[in-house]
Amino acid sequence: MPRPSMREQLIEAASSRFHEHGFNGSGIKDITEAAGTPKGSFYNHFDSKESMAVEVMNRYAHGRQIRMLAASATPAVERIRRHFEYMSKDLEQYEYTRGCLFGNFGAELSTQSPVIREEVARRLASWESLLAAALDEAQESGALASGVDSALLARFLVNAWEGAALRAKVTRSGAPLDDFFTVFDSLITVPPAAEADSEKA
Amino acid sequence: MPRPSMREQLIEAASSRFHEHGFNGSGIKDITEAAGTPKGSFYNHFDSKESMAVEVMNRYAHGRQIRMLAASATPAVERIRRHFEYMSKDLEQYEYTRGCLFGNFGAELSTQSPVIREEVARRLASWESLLAAALDEAQESGALASGVDSALLARFLVNAWEGAALRAKVTRSGAPLDDFFTVFDSLITVPPAAEADSEKA
Repeated sequence: MPRPSMREQLIEAASSRFHEHGFNGSGIKDITEAAGTPKGSFYNHFDSKESMAVEVMNRYAHGRQIRMLAASATPAVERIRRHFEYMSKDLEQYEYTRGCLFGNFGAELSTQSPVIREEVARRLASWESLLAAALDEAQESGALASGVDSALLARFLVNAWEGAALRAKVTRSGAPLDDFFTVFDSLITVPPAAEADSEKA
Repeated sequence: MPRPSMREQLIEAASSRFHEHGFNGSGIKDITEAAGTPKGSFYNHFDSKESMAVEVMNRYAHGRQIRMLAASATPAVERIRRHFEYMSKDLEQYEYTRGCLFGNFGAELSTQSPVIREEVARRLASWESLLAAALDEAQESGALASGVDSALLARFLVNAWEGAALRAKVTRSGAPLDDFFTVFDSLITVPPAAEADSEKA
């Protein structure tokens, strides 16, 4: 039976390769070389590069800590903002060279691999659901204006984040993420008119 | 001297291949086969696949008709919305399989190719400038609230569009673009409070 650590080494190496060179830019040999494992080790652990990519996405999803969005003592708006800040720091750590793996795979592989396209769609949809639930909670507590469509806002924020992460990658700069936060604050903050309305009610 | 039409055939074929299979998923042989030209024809016309990709981006940029954003008799906000609608129809035409070529290349190649990364950055920045100029015009005419930071809004719209186009590709659906338009309208429309302010002024 193969050692679990070799599988881990392969996933770790593939994760870096896929982030930096994309899926088609990363051969199995590149991955095993980066992992420091024999080329033959790959097929002891994975059926295909595609099934390995799904595992890499699974690991990436855990690293994003979307559980930060789940209900807790921290107010919902703060949880949401902290979650985006957490991801922003992660992008900064790699000097904005990586972008979001879901976005990268979605852009590169949506036509080529239905399996990967569906996995990306599923991952983004789960994230969106947690975000929408947190926005609903913010709305119930009055921290988000009642007129806002929270499901639409969750969808929009996910997509705007993906776009900002992509632009950060293209410009090697955190400025697109700063813009995201500025607009986030303006979309989330209860506008004075809404506050006045809620006082009237 | 090579016939100009063969060069055109190659660019046309590469454009489809790059959109659908990405850069690394498109070999020179795939491109010449799709173009119906001999494999050797490639190097009569291009130094490298990378320099061909820059030409393909040039053609793609023209097809996006960013000149629709330039000053004209049509009110600025309408020009901006029509331009995004034009691009939305283009994505729909390919059943949302393509996404934006700039976003695709940016996601796939930003680490691999400084030339392509810089070209994508330059193209998105030009688009953004025209958008910012149209937003300034909208602001001068009172169609956009005076408190809005038009340069920030232009940057945010470009990135949010890229994210929406990517999500459309991942979900094979126009819904992310519809969400973009809904939020666009809410960001651009002069809010009642601002109208009241401008009446007071």
